[in-house]
Amino acid sequence: MEKNVQIIPLGGVNEIGKNMYVLRYKDEMIVIDSGVMFPDDEMLGIDYVIPDMSFLFENKEKVRAVFLTHGHEDHIGSLPYFLQEIDVPVYGTTLTLGFVRPKLEDFKLSDEKFRKVHIGDRITEGPFKVEFIRVNHSIPDGAALAITTPAGVIIHSGDFKFDQTPVDKKVTDYHKFAEYGDNGVLALMCDSTNAGKDGYTPSEREVGETLDSVLRNNPNRILMATFASNVHRIQQAFALAHKHNRKVAVIGRSMINNVGISTELGYLDMPPNTLIDINEIDNYPPEKLLILCTGSQGEPLAALTRMAFNKHYQITLNNFDTVIMSSNPIPGNEKLVNRVVNALTKTGATVITSKNAKVHVSGHASAEELKMLFHLVKPKYIVPFHGEYQHKHACRELAISLGYEKDNVFLLENGDVLELNDDSAAIADTVEAGKVLIDGRGIGDVGRIVLRDRHMLAQYGVLTSIVVISADKKAILAGPTIITRGFVFVKESEELIEEAISLVTEAIEELLRTGKTGWAPLKNKMRQVLQDYLYEETGRRPMILPIIMEV
Amino acid sequence: MEKNVQIIPLGGVNEIGKNMYVLRYKDEMIVIDSGVMFPDDEMLGIDYVIPDMSFLFENKEKVRAVFLTHGHEDHIGSLPYFLQEIDVPVYGTTLTLGFVRPKLEDFKLSDEKFRKVHIGDRITEGPFKVEFIRVNHSIPDGAALAITTPAGVIIHSGDFKFDQTPVDKKVTDYHKFAEYGDNGVLALMCDSTNAGKDGYTPSEREVGETLDSVLRNNPNRILMATFASNVHRIQQAFALAHKHNRKVAVIGRSMINNVGISTELGYLDMPPNTLIDINEIDNYPPEKLLILCTGSQGEPLAALTRMAFNKHYQITLNNFDTVIMSSNPIPGNEKLVNRVVNALTKTGATVITSKNAKVHVSGHASAEELKMLFHLVKPKYIVPFHGEYQHKHACRELAISLGYEKDNVFLLENGDVLELNDDSAAIADTVEAGKVLIDGRGIGDVGRIVLRDRHMLAQYGVLTSIVVISADKKAILAGPTIITRGFVFVKESEELIEEAISLVTEAIEELLRTGKTGWAPLKNKMRQVLQDYLYEETGRRPMILPIIMEV
Repeated sequence: MEKNVQIIPLGGVNEIGKNMYVLRYKDEMIVIDSGVMFPDDEMLGIDYVIPDMSFLFENKEKVRAVFLTHGHEDHIGSLPYFLQEIDVPVYGTTLTLGFVRPKLEDFKLSDEKFRKVHIGDRITEGPFKVEFIRVNHSIPDGAALAITTPAGVIIHSGDFKFDQTPVDKKVTDYHKFAEYGDNGVLALMCDSTNAGKDGYTPSEREVGETLDSVLRNNPNRILMATFASNVHRIQQAFALAHKHNRKVAVIGRSMINNVGISTELGYLDMPPNTLIDINEIDNYPPEKLLILCTGSQGEPLAALTRMAFNKHYQITLNNFDTVIMSSNPIPGNEKLVNRVVNALTKTGATVITSKNAKVHVSGHASAEELKMLFHLVKPKYIVPFHGEYQHKHACRELAISLGYEKDNVFLLENGDVLELNDDSAAIADTVEAGKVLIDGRGIGDVGRIVLRDRHMLAQYGVLTSIVVISADKKAILAGPTIITRGFVFVKESEELIEEAISLVTEAIEELLRTGKTGWAPLKNKMRQVLQDYLYEETGRRPMILPIIMEV
Repeated sequence: MEKNVQIIPLGGVNEIGKNMYVLRYKDEMIVIDSGVMFPDDEMLGIDYVIPDMSFLFENKEKVRAVFLTHGHEDHIGSLPYFLQEIDVPVYGTTLTLGFVRPKLEDFKLSDEKFRKVHIGDRITEGPFKVEFIRVNHSIPDGAALAITTPAGVIIHSGDFKFDQTPVDKKVTDYHKFAEYGDNGVLALMCDSTNAGKDGYTPSEREVGETLDSVLRNNPNRILMATFASNVHRIQQAFALAHKHNRKVAVIGRSMINNVGISTELGYLDMPPNTLIDINEIDNYPPEKLLILCTGSQGEPLAALTRMAFNKHYQITLNNFDTVIMSSNPIPGNEKLVNRVVNALTKTGATVITSKNAKVHVSGHASAEELKMLFHLVKPKYIVPFHGEYQHKHACRELAISLGYEKDNVFLLENGDVLELNDDSAAIADTVEAGKVLIDGRGIGDVGRIVLRDRHMLAQYGVLTSIVVISADKKAILAGPTIITRGFVFVKESEELIEEAISLVTEAIEELLRTGKTGWAPLKNKMRQVLQDYLYEETGRRPMILPIIMEV
């Protein structure tokens, strides 16, 4: 087993989020991406989720570098947690590094190991030669990576689509994929998000066409909410506003930040005299304004949400407004988005969503694009990533439809070690991998038990019952005192609590009389009495905290 | 204002769920439907939501009867809460009453006031003459209501679609609508769920066609999950299974119950020798089996979910299975459904969903059907119900497109009193209306404060800190004792808690020394010290319960 290369996903398979992939050759490794994921509904109180990086932390000295494919949160968001522990070069394109940089501040990290890469550059780190290949995606400056190793070439598609008319005119480098394909590719790691969708993903340009038609001869003020990282879309908005003689104002912190970074780095070509400050909008009639804002996912605190519920201090919507929700709801956000659409409609504004117009397209390749990539790259093995199980499965079905053997397509789990060479490929091992929950300053300290308790508290609240007993364990000196939160409306539950107190008093006195005065029996009795009585009366099971204090 | 009739929604407008509408003429009222709604995500621990019925309870003696349009939970689920307080006749069709009846048991209510109605029957209750008109919906025996009052005719569409090829061959009674239309209709209350969808809703029969093609020549065992109340679909499944020589087994309590009720009442025509017990399935090869089950919404405890995660005691899925998810996710359930689809795919089973085949159609009329209803009924006024604001708005746009004045379409809020006669219509008043939360035995006792506390507890958990002080308020006799749940992992937080205890001790002793020994300052101080320290250390804000016991 001399010439083996290993592919080890630490995050990003069986899920959409927290992408992190390791390539290992002998004793050296590189890391591709380091992202975050939103918490699941059951992860109460959790801020976000990052990959379990302990495998890397235990092999610090073997890690040579990090390569970033593009600047989305699910690919860059956990980089500071990685860099806190492992100080290696970080390679990425200009805009990608531009979007990572602000994240370092909170962690007091420097960017001195950041290495700016231009598309087409080849970087050598140990046994890995990494070339950045241009692909299209819903953010500029995205890349696929072609990684030449002594065991063969591995291509990582990045997040991609084939856009024949990209806004920045930078078409996916089909030639480069073809060239690698001609020379032989061992494995293709491949974005499987939309593998289950037939046909081709539409060009970002189509959103521009819709926007053009909305802006044309529209007497209304127009607001457009979209992802702050979709610089292509923001670019189109600016260009079309200019074309239709509208000024553009930008609202929402992340939108303002990203417009700033993109303009400064040359990724947003701002037409002259188009951007105005939000405070200037009253100087223009509605038909001269386009307002870009955050909130396309119905986020409760975003600009658009506040406008929808008439809580924005600068903008009040009415029937002289047209609002474009330029996005699809991310799974789980449907109800939030719906709530905002209802509220927007109620203001009198005309509301345009992806349900009634082509105001959003995906950034991920559909079935035919994936097949085309397979044909271009001609990999021996295929490893679908960036997908739930159903997406990886659909990707494998596509490969099979082109004649691939099922066994040459690997549906990995996070932590699987796929060992490859020209003759064979197999899962050889597994390493630690999983979810690390970030809660405030806590990294991974909130686990199953804490979440289970939060879940119980969320359902029925808490009830604390305290009794002070004498040191000789013969008398109650104070209490029982019962405090509840989230269980019943305290002001209207006096009787219930008084009865509970008298039941506890009785039960404790009985135990004290009979000499069963260990803390455990006292606490258990108190819990049992309360549980039974409260369930009988209310049908609820609050978390009961029985406390004995001895004086 | 002699001859006015009033329409008062108590639930069902600006929401999909808990339908309840009141018609009042002078001092007499009838009620249409009495449904429940699922709790929103922020209603932690709530079982379900019913309409605030206090307006009815305060006017008990004026309520003449309840009329039920069909047997879905959002139309019948809160009836027991109504009947507990108001004992009046309940009119409904056979199957509708059949689905309501089991609900009475838990409430120890009798069905002696149930009045079975046949489509076409006219019931007189006070000044109201109510005729049941056949409509199609995703449950058999649904009805629209034509209510003749001295002020004019009001038609309530029920939940409906126009299905030209209904499974039970009982076509919507277009003639009856036309007849009322010819004679003059004052107002149409109209199902607006799909008003924003273009065209016509497909026939339920189309699902049968898909199912037919899946069953034909399929060597797999086939499982189909669908809504337990969709008797039409279950009927098609039985008929097609019989056609393709398959036996049918039924799993899941609600599915078994509904199949039983529907068969008994003559709404499910069971082919001979088709139904088998679930325990018999091992006697048949896969290609001879169709299994109907619950779980099409990804419900965590449903049969299909347990199978997906290999936790069903009777059925283990593999690549000789085909699973049909015959439903669309109800908004809010997308992630649950997705989770189940991923798990099902992982078992090796072939998974068919509404994303890749026509295995589900809606039960609600789309835009063209609504327009047709408007043409048939020719109402003077239109009142969209059964819809969020955006749906009601879309319904109004449809009416406007047919030449209605905007002011003749009323987008009501729950509690609005719309007063109508032949000359005018206006919102004349509002009555109490809203959400009553059901939590265990509690009806409406959980309100804003309890939910806010549950939300706080869910985020960061709870911390109780108890100190026993002497009656002379000069010394701490016991404690501080600190107990936490859902805040930090207790076993790994000893230092944090010990430091917290010493900070509290210091702070309390300081106050005792200086004589500031009121309970309020002591508790406030304890809360403040803990809050500051814990936020500093953890970035979290647990709910802090400071407790002083005096001995």
